Amino acid sequence: MTSAWYLNPAQTLDLTSKDQAQQRQLQLTKPTGALGQLEQMAIDLAAMQGKVCPLIDRPWITIFAGDHGIMQENISAYPQVVTRQMLHNFATGGACISVIARQYQAYLQVIDCGTAGAAYQVNGVEQRGIAQGTANFLKQPAMSLEQSQLAMDLGKDSVEQAHAQQSDLYIAGEMGIGNTCSASALACLLLQEDAEKLTGVGTGIDDATLQRKKQVIQEAIALYQTQVQHQPVHALCCVGGFEIAAMVGAYIRCAQLGLPMLIDGFISSVAALCAVRILPQAHDWMLFSHQSAEYGHQRILQELQAKPLLQLNLRLGEGSGAGAAIGIIQLACALHQHMATFAEAAVANKS
Amino acid sequence: MTSAWYLNPAQTLDLTSKDQAQQRQLQLTKPTGALGQLEQMAIDLAAMQGKVCPLIDRPWITIFAGDHGIMQENISAYPQVVTRQMLHNFATGGACISVIARQYQAYLQVIDCGTAGAAYQVNGVEQRGIAQGTANFLKQPAMSLEQSQLAMDLGKDSVEQAHAQQSDLYIAGEMGIGNTCSASALACLLLQEDAEKLTGVGTGIDDATLQRKKQVIQEAIALYQTQVQHQPVHALCCVGGFEIAAMVGAYIRCAQLGLPMLIDGFISSVAALCAVRILPQAHDWMLFSHQSAEYGHQRILQELQAKPLLQLNLRLGEGSGAGAAIGIIQLACALHQHMATFAEAAVANKS
Repeated sequence: MTSAWYLNPAQTLDLTSKDQAQQRQLQLTKPTGALGQLEQMAIDLAAMQGKVCPLIDRPWITIFAGDHGIMQENISAYPQVVTRQMLHNFATGGACISVIARQYQAYLQVIDCGTAGAAYQVNGVEQRGIAQGTANFLKQPAMSLEQSQLAMDLGKDSVEQAHAQQSDLYIAGEMGIGNTCSASALACLLLQEDAEKLTGVGTGIDDATLQRKKQVIQEAIALYQTQVQHQPVHALCCVGGFEIAAMVGAYIRCAQLGLPMLIDGFISSVAALCAVRILPQAHDWMLFSHQSAEYGHQRILQELQAKPLLQLNLRLGEGSGAGAAIGIIQLACALHQHMATFAEAAVANKS
Repeated sequence: MTSAWYLNPAQTLDLTSKDQAQQRQLQLTKPTGALGQLEQMAIDLAAMQGKVCPLIDRPWITIFAGDHGIMQENISAYPQVVTRQMLHNFATGGACISVIARQYQAYLQVIDCGTAGAAYQVNGVEQRGIAQGTANFLKQPAMSLEQSQLAMDLGKDSVEQAHAQQSDLYIAGEMGIGNTCSASALACLLLQEDAEKLTGVGTGIDDATLQRKKQVIQEAIALYQTQVQHQPVHALCCVGGFEIAAMVGAYIRCAQLGLPMLIDGFISSVAALCAVRILPQAHDWMLFSHQSAEYGHQRILQELQAKPLLQLNLRLGEGSGAGAAIGIIQLACALHQHMATFAEAAVANKS
C-alpha cells in the first residue's frame, strides 16, 4: 500500500511560544515551579497553540464504539449487548461522559464503528459500522487491512470535523465490551511483552475469567507475533478493534492538523502507542489525562514517557478520565494567563 | 482554662444518607467502583450534607496570613515583606488563589491575623492582627496562650460567616513567609518526630538554608517537647503561627457546624492534624484535596488516613491545591446525581 494518509508528517510545535510561556511562568507571583504539573501543561499547550497564553475553550469528545469477536471466548463480565445499550445511554445523556460533556460544555460525538446486531437507529449515534463487530482473533485476524483503513478513516473524519469547528482540544473515548482484551493483545504485540504484564480485570472480571483472558492473549501473541514485528498497522489488524483503529486514526490526524489531543485511559493509551509507532511525531501533540486502575496502564504510560495529570483510580473508559481532566487543564491556562507577575503586583522575588 | 469553645462536640455524620449514596453508586451505569475516588467523594459528601445527592455550589475560601519571628534565623528564600505584598496581590486579584476563586465562583476572604510592619489599609484585607508577627520560638514561645485563643477565634468567626452565607465547602489557605518552618516544628511536636522527617524546602531554599531550618526545628523540639506532650494547644503556642492557629480554629468550627472542609497542602494538613488532636471527631468533616511536593506532607496525610484527590506536585500554599480540587469535587457530585441508573437507561448489569 502506498502513500497512506496516516504516514503524512505531523505539524511541528511552536518552540518560540513554548519558550515565551516558560519565561512567563518564571515571572508569575509564586515560587518557581510551585504550580508543578499545571505549569508544564500551560507550557506544552503554548507550544501546540502557538501562543504564549493558550486557552481551552471548545473541547471536543468523540466516542468510538465497536464490538469484538473475541467475546466468543468469554473474556468479559458484561454481555456484548451492553455496547449498544451504552451508545443509547451516551446519546440520551445518562452516561458518565454525557454528564462530563455537559459539565464542561464539550461537544459530544458518538460513532458506531461496527457493533453486533441488526441495523438500528438512535438519534445522536452516527451509523458508520464497518461490520457487525470484528472477527474472533484466535481464529483469524480481527480485521482485514481494508477494514482497518476504513476504521482509521472514521477517526480522521471525526478530527477533521472537530478542527473545522475550531475545537481546541480533542478527546477520543471508546465503548466496546471486551475491548480491554483487544487492547492488551495489541499492547503485547507492540511491546513484545507477555500477556501477564499487560492484562487486567477490565470492567471487573473474576479470577477464572482473568486467567482465560490472559490465555487468550498469550495464544494471540503466539499466533501473530512473528508476522507483525515492527508493523503496527498489521498488529492493529490482527488483534485490534474498529474503535481502537478509529482512535489510532484520530490521534494521527490530530497531530497532522496540529490539534492538541488529550489521551484517556488504558485502551486510549494503547491506541496512542500504536499511533506513535506509525507516526512517531504524533507524540508531540499528546497530553495525558490520567493513570487508570487498569493493570498495564502504567507500563504503557512509561513507554509513552507520559506523566498524566490525575490518578483517581478510574477504570471506566468512554473518555471519562480525559473528560475529568478538562477542568484542571482550563485552570492551568487561567492561572498562566491571569496571575500577576512579580513586577505587576510589586511583589519581591526570591532574595 | 475551662470550657473553651473548641472542645465542644462536632456534628455527627448522616449515615443513612451515606448508605443511600453508596447504594446509588451501585446502580449507576458503570462497572462497580469504576469511578474510583470520585465515587467515595460523593458518598463522603452525602454523609456530611445529609442528602443522597450532595452539591457543592457555594465554595468559600479564607486566606489567613501571619508573620513569623523565626524569620530572624534566616530560614526562608523570600523576605518577610512578601507576606504583606501577597495580601495585596490576593486582594487585587493577581494571586493564584484569586484566579482560582474566580474560576470556580468561590467567595474569597483575606484576613491579616498578624503581619510585620506598621498599620496599613488595603481594600479587601480584613485587619485582625493580633501582633506584628509571632515571637522567635527559639527564644520564647511563638504565642501566648491568650494570643493562640484570639487566633483560633479568627478561624471560628470566619467559619461562622461562611456558614451564615450558606457556603457548602470551606477552604482555609495560608500566607506567611517562614510558615513551613513553624508547621514542620508543630508537626514534629505533635508526632514526636525528628526535624529530619518533616522538614522540606518550602518555597525553595538552598541546601545550606535547609540545614539551618532543620537545626532550628531540632532545637525547638529540644526546648519544648517535654512540656507540650499530648497538649496540642500548648504545642501550637510554642511553635505555631497566628495563621496556623486560625486554621486550627476554623477546622474545629467547621466540624462543630457540620460544614465540609477541604484541606489544602502541608501547612493546612498540619493545622488539620492539630485540630484532630484537639477534637478527634473534627476528622469526620475533612476532605483532602492534594498531596503537595513539600517533604513531610505524605507523612502527615498518612497520620490523617487521608487519600487526597490530586497529586500535581503543587507547593504554593494559599489554599491553591484545595482550590484546584473544587472542580473535581463538583464533577463527582454531578456524576453522582446525573448519571442514569441501569434501570433508567435499560442497560444490562454484570452477567
